[in-house]
Amino acid sequence: MAVANSAAGNTKWLKCPGLSRAVSSWARASHNDTMILLFTDFGYEGPYVGQMKAVLHRLAPETRVIDIIHDAPVWNPRAAAYLLAALARESEVGDVWLCVVDPGVGGSRLPVVLDCGGVFFVGPNNGLFEPIRRRIPDASLTSIDWRPERLSATFHGRDLFAPVAAMIARGEVMPGGSVAVDKQRTGADWPDDLAEVIYIDAYGNLMTGIAGSTLNDGHKLRIGSETLAYARTFSEVPAAALFWHRNSSGLVEIAANQARAVDLLGVAPSTPVAVI
Amino acid sequence: MAVANSAAGNTKWLKCPGLSRAVSSWARASHNDTMILLFTDFGYEGPYVGQMKAVLHRLAPETRVIDIIHDAPVWNPRAAAYLLAALARESEVGDVWLCVVDPGVGGSRLPVVLDCGGVFFVGPNNGLFEPIRRRIPDASLTSIDWRPERLSATFHGRDLFAPVAAMIARGEVMPGGSVAVDKQRTGADWPDDLAEVIYIDAYGNLMTGIAGSTLNDGHKLRIGSETLAYARTFSEVPAAALFWHRNSSGLVEIAANQARAVDLLGVAPSTPVAVI
Amino acid sequence: MAVANSAAGNTKWLKCPGLSRAVSSWARASHNDTMILLFTDFGYEGPYVGQMKAVLHRLAPETRVIDIIHDAPVWNPRAAAYLLAALARESEVGDVWLCVVDPGVGGSRLPVVLDCGGVFFVGPNNGLFEPIRRRIPDASLTSIDWRPERLSATFHGRDLFAPVAAMIARGEVMPGGSVAVDKQRTGADWPDDLAEVIYIDAYGNLMTGIAGSTLNDGHKLRIGSETLAYARTFSEVPAAALFWHRNSSGLVEIAANQARAVDLLGVAPSTPVAVI
Repeated sequence: MAVANSAAGNTKWLKCPGLSRAVSSWARASHNDTMILLFTDFGYEGPYVGQMKAVLHRLAPETRVIDIIHDAPVWNPRAAAYLLAALARESEVGDVWLCVVDPGVGGSRLPVVLDCGGVFFVGPNNGLFEPIRRRIPDASLTSIDWRPERLSATFHGRDLFAPVAAMIARGEVMPGGSVAVDKQRTGADWPDDLAEVIYIDAYGNLMTGIAGSTLNDGHKLRIGSETLAYARTFSEVPAAALFWHRNSSGLVEIAANQARAVDLLGVAPSTPVAVI
Repeated sequence: MAVANSAAGNTKWLKCPGLSRAVSSWARASHNDTMILLFTDFGYEGPYVGQMKAVLHRLAPETRVIDIIHDAPVWNPRAAAYLLAALARESEVGDVWLCVVDPGVGGSRLPVVLDCGGVFFVGPNNGLFEPIRRRIPDASLTSIDWRPERLSATFHGRDLFAPVAAMIARGEVMPGGSVAVDKQRTGADWPDDLAEVIYIDAYGNLMTGIAGSTLNDGHKLRIGSETLAYARTFSEVPAAALFWHRNSSGLVEIAANQARAVDLLGVAPSTPVAVI
Repeated sequence: MAVANSAAGNTKWLKCPGLSRAVSSWARASHNDTMILLFTDFGYEGPYVGQMKAVLHRLAPETRVIDIIHDAPVWNPRAAAYLLAALARESEVGDVWLCVVDPGVGGSRLPVVLDCGGVFFVGPNNGLFEPIRRRIPDASLTSIDWRPERLSATFHGRDLFAPVAAMIARGEVMPGGSVAVDKQRTGADWPDDLAEVIYIDAYGNLMTGIAGSTLNDGHKLRIGSETLAYARTFSEVPAAALFWHRNSSGLVEIAANQARAVDLLGVAPSTPVAVI
């Protein structure tokens, strides 16, 4: 079973061009092409995303901010980590990912930046960046020593991570510098691919934490009592038939043609899957 | 009954200024005032809208992107087409509508651009642009021959339609050119106004696909076993009373004062209505 | 009980820097740092927010628009007013708040602008700005005399308030001028702090309309049959334990550690709370 050992031969899974260009991380020349991408579990309702974006706009008014996802696995940095690694595959130099899945906010977990040669990930040191870290050998994980004048007990996304993302987007050196924390990282014992349901989309498709590139078309997927074969896309199976495919973010996904796989299977996030 | 034949005398329903200004479609001088407007059935959760916007920002960083609606009738290009025609009424030269209600993604349906003299609609050739096409006599419908290096089987919104919308926003000629497909268009047999519920909004109001301008105030609307009279607005009827009015997008809409029409009527999208 | 009389000693609750800088309200020199912040009860689905943003972009293309919240208390300007006052605390000169919680749209309520010395609030004169007005002694409330060419009966957010917000963001004098309406303001009899649940967030936390600064840590909060003690943050109480804290917007909030307070208490918006 190829899943557990896939990363070694797969270091370009995150196609980060920064790895082949010499980019000084904390002091980039220009911010014209910078983009801040938001990855949170805040949900789509309420003021939290907006408050964070207001801070970003005040501190980096020329930087475009893109909402990638706000319903990442809630309070589940492990599942969220594999989703983030998939969504971040197409990152380009200058991208700053602001990532907040942070059940330990207000506790002792460190705030960190993962620098993948010009693509940055800002967030809590709770394993959220571990799958990316593992795929980018030259990436460096450093603690954020800077603290804002006012730090609420419950909203570091707005008060700490957003200002740091803005500083990086502006090409500034963070006051206080940073310290490598590669040795303290959470998730070092996590698998390279997570063989469970990590996200259920609005159409009822089940994303797993398994990279599509680690399976061949002959592999089958077992979930509950069902065994599913591969199909390239929806229209290649009969209506309501279940199958697995490589989704548009590169993950192994369980889907059904013109039907909701989640309802057909009656499963929830974190349900394990097995590759056979 | 005026509904079925309304379009002939109603060609300015889409108030597209481009029709009276000579605009070279594929090569506009400036993109400063360009706006890309998103119309999809992706829903508001999950990463799909964000991934599409990230592509738009990379390819047309100076163009503002506006989310008009992401809960257009799911997998229902016919109902969505009449909603789009209503929402697009106020378009101005330079607007690029990126429209993805595309149940046939990955199949044989063509990607197309409808050019209404400087207002563009990019999306699948499944009838989504048919009501607009019919109201703008000079509009041209052309196929998109360009293909990206990487085209996923399931996400043409991100991989194909978004890059094309960005090219148009930048005033570029599309590589590969385009071919008129006016003769192959889907929906040529659809009515000018769609006498059914096409969208139910968050307040429980029921939008129909009937242009408000085709009815006079004496018309009544029949839905299920109810017959509804016209009122100008909510406060002109008693609390919880049902009525029809011309909504802020110009459509005939069924509503109730301080109550949810959808709950009072117990109806679903696609329920037919009759004008009497 | 300190709640009812807190505002007198609390006039800086809205930390509006404009109060200490001399800013000519209607004619600011530059709009580079201007931001339009949206506060509505439109919900997150449907076309209404997008249509409003399209208007803003056409009229003030250089101004960033931030969605602060779109699920403000529906049709409840009183509860919404206290939430707005909390969210607007961090406003800066140049901010234009576009606020639409407007059950009286189409009726006789005036459209108004509250000018807090360079921070503006545009919306209906239904009390929505009253708590802010009361905390900023120099603020002026003026009616909006300008009317658009086309004013729908039901969507003043798009047709009237958005264009006015754009004019202010551009630093323009509003055609028609404005008249002080301080004497006609709604909500003059409302309390300084609203001792009820005004908003329930996606995590099930219950925000009240009580400013956190008006209570000390020894105060207890009574809701239903429960009496809750203060804790600084979630991790300071046992799992599933209820407590009150000052939330990241400065409001007294009822929460539970790793659980949904709303479900534990079984309460709804507008439930009264008592400080003891």
